[in-house]
Amino acid sequence: MSATSVKFQTRDSVEQVEEGNSLSPKFDDHGLITAVTTDANSGEVLMQGYMNKEALQLTISTGEAYYFSRSRQTLWHKGATSGLVQSVQELLIDDDQDCIWLRVNVAGGASCHVGYRSCFYRKVPIGNDFEMKQSDGHINLEWTESEKVFNPKDVYGDTPNPTIL
Amino acid sequence: MSATSVKFQTRDSVEQVEEGNSLSPKFDDHGLITAVTTDANSGEVLMQGYMNKEALQLTISTGEAYYFSRSRQTLWHKGATSGLVQSVQELLIDDDQDCIWLRVNVAGGASCHVGYRSCFYRKVPIGNDFEMKQSDGHINLEWTESEKVFNPKDVYGDTPNPTIL
Repeated sequence: MSATSVKFQTRDSVEQVEEGNSLSPKFDDHGLITAVTTDANSGEVLMQGYMNKEALQLTISTGEAYYFSRSRQTLWHKGATSGLVQSVQELLIDDDQDCIWLRVNVAGGASCHVGYRSCFYRKVPIGNDFEMKQSDGHINLEWTESEKVFNPKDVYGDTPNPTIL
Repeated sequence: MSATSVKFQTRDSVEQVEEGNSLSPKFDDHGLITAVTTDANSGEVLMQGYMNKEALQLTISTGEAYYFSRSRQTLWHKGATSGLVQSVQELLIDDDQDCIWLRVNVAGGASCHVGYRSCFYRKVPIGNDFEMKQSDGHINLEWTESEKVFNPKDVYGDTPNPTIL
């Protein structure tokens, strides 16, 4: 079954979108919907990305995660380069249907192009911890992962870094 | 300590943003950064929202979750109306610093304006499950939560529904 065979329904009312069982995703002005990806076992947030219509259709029909790369402006089969394919265990959609939650298993155990398991490998001190550690309002990020799972240079070679300043 | 006392640093290089310990969040053209909120205990994704600069500063300084409401175009102290305040246990930022991950405890146990525990109370059948259940490419969403935690009418009264079609 191809991507185009997955059909979405129109958004006719708030009640239908929030309380109904029709799949009526809202794509933004750029044709994208937000996707949050967590590890199906640990619950850890691995990454946050975007899908266009085709990426969402392909994710549903194949059970592997597809995204739309904003930096490369292209459909992106996650893991096509790195081998770190995401096998989707569960796909959920939120109340107003403008966000997708993917619960995945990752081949190789890493999801981040920097080489870490999760893209969220640094934390910000907050509340009392912020008060104690801040200096003139400035704080240092703290590492939550100590070692990279892979060396990005080995995996991606000279592919341009997707981070935009 | 007030919100304005939390200082962010400029984004000078990809290496600094990805591998450094400076907090240099990237706000988009609307002045917003994406925020993903999970239950600190269960790992469940509760909601996905946005923060402006002030919301992020207040979240860091107070340890309670603040967002920016796009539908109301205003700073939003989550739980101010419903009482369902989110106490942030951990705040993480991703590799390119354009997404925040909040691990929270929620007073009252619900995060969704529709009344459910999580905003993600419906799932989409995928892969083989999609193949089996689809009819001409159409599928029905399946409920993952059977009961609402609260009645939105009791909590929000006549406040306009934030869902935009």
